[in-house]
Amino acid sequence: MSKRAKNKTRVQIVKVAKSQRKARQDYVVTEEPLEFRLVAGGERRTVAVTMRTPGNDFELAAGFLFAEGIVGGRDEVARITYCVDRDVSEEQRYNIVNIELKTDKMPDLATLERNFYTTSACGLCGKASLDALERRDLCVLKSDIAVSAELLSSLPQTLRKSQGLFDVTGGLHAAALFSLEGELIALREDVGRHNALDKLIGWALLENKLPLSNHILLLSGRASFELMQKALAAQIALVCAVSAPSSLAVDLARRFNMTLVGFLRDGRFNIYAGETRVLDAEVKT
Amino acid sequence: MSKRAKNKTRVQIVKVAKSQRKARQDYVVTEEPLEFRLVAGGERRTVAVTMRTPGNDFELAAGFLFAEGIVGGRDEVARITYCVDRDVSEEQRYNIVNIELKTDKMPDLATLERNFYTTSACGLCGKASLDALERRDLCVLKSDIAVSAELLSSLPQTLRKSQGLFDVTGGLHAAALFSLEGELIALREDVGRHNALDKLIGWALLENKLPLSNHILLLSGRASFELMQKALAAQIALVCAVSAPSSLAVDLARRFNMTLVGFLRDGRFNIYAGETRVLDAEVKT
Repeated sequence: MSKRAKNKTRVQIVKVAKSQRKARQDYVVTEEPLEFRLVAGGERRTVAVTMRTPGNDFELAAGFLFAEGIVGGRDEVARITYCVDRDVSEEQRYNIVNIELKTDKMPDLATLERNFYTTSACGLCGKASLDALERRDLCVLKSDIAVSAELLSSLPQTLRKSQGLFDVTGGLHAAALFSLEGELIALREDVGRHNALDKLIGWALLENKLPLSNHILLLSGRASFELMQKALAAQIALVCAVSAPSSLAVDLARRFNMTLVGFLRDGRFNIYAGETRVLDAEVKT
Repeated sequence: MSKRAKNKTRVQIVKVAKSQRKARQDYVVTEEPLEFRLVAGGERRTVAVTMRTPGNDFELAAGFLFAEGIVGGRDEVARITYCVDRDVSEEQRYNIVNIELKTDKMPDLATLERNFYTTSACGLCGKASLDALERRDLCVLKSDIAVSAELLSSLPQTLRKSQGLFDVTGGLHAAALFSLEGELIALREDVGRHNALDKLIGWALLENKLPLSNHILLLSGRASFELMQKALAAQIALVCAVSAPSSLAVDLARRFNMTLVGFLRDGRFNIYAGETRVLDAEVKT
């Protein structure tokens, strides 16, 4: 969708190994700011600026607004465009996205100001962050899907095969959506892990595929509170991370009946929550 | 400094390997929200909420405010305390930090609202983000320090030895400060990479050790624009990352005469900017 999806940048570098120094061309992942402007009821307001890798910018905008609870579905979006105002220079044009809503009233953006997971004026803590999600009508997931341990173990390799095509920079995070049969449905990459997941969920929103109850999410890195919150909003009950989860990610998964798998690599993994969705393994203690 | 520096949390997990399932106790990195409240001139204002790993919270607050350009040095800070208001419950008390300034006027926080790296109303791009740094009086670094390739190659191992003591979770990012002789000066860890660096620079600020011109910074992960911006504010001319840099990190390093080393591991590394600060390697092309 992006007209200028340049996700890698060529740079001149010096490679050093065993005190040998060689000049080389190499690629680094492209990082550029992207501004989201919400358009509704004749108003236009900047809601966020994020550092991201260009490409799939409209999905990123849609996914971000969905995760923040500002946009509930495809039917609320009139259109998404790059900013083409005359006062925007050519090189900046693809770093501003206008999201035009169908509603004629600018949504309440107060939640954004303190990052939505904060609570009352009197303080905050992990438990309060989870309470705040419930107040946003995010429900305990009821999905009774289940997959085999073997299938889960196969996912990282499938991801790597596809990611290898795109990532020659070593600097991209990936978020990948799989079917319950282990088929790769969609893959999005970004220099920021939140952006990669926003792009993926934004794609699902724009394609009218939400909720994603019957899918598996694989994250190429760690699982944090914010990533789990985004998965919850998309109703993904089965989340796998190649690396470690945080304590609050585990708490969130348990509270909302999600399955959280961590350290999924080399045919092994840990289940931190919702183990009943993983089949085919005998219990030994 | 934190009274409740619980940086890891015990959880009950299920370990799966080769279709064998075993119940185990394990640790995950603790993730909890932390709120910064700026106190000046009788006013108190929340400036940010971040998800962080408890511990070194006062350093985190100081480093964050320094990176954002709100606090220029130790002498501007009257005191930093946990919020002990009566209406703050016990479990929330260590998740709110008050930073009391000596000035009797609340600083202009407008920059924070759009994340400081944005520019005029007409748009933004990577170049504009760098321009914005110059307007904040961040100068091109003049430091003429230099270290050997061999010394740089030894840093990750030194870091790992020290980090191993703390990180049994696999979920912590590290930011480490070294002397030009390769001696580890300070190490800070966090579930968030920005937080780890804010803690490190906040430590230096509170200990009156800024600027850090004669030091080397080692990041356990990738090097992004924001991390380089924080290093620049602390005047660290030599930044090394164990993993990949982004395009804008490279641009920033070149613009401000910083040295940026990436993929520093296994006795090899790439120099993306400022190669003259790395000695002892012959040029072969």
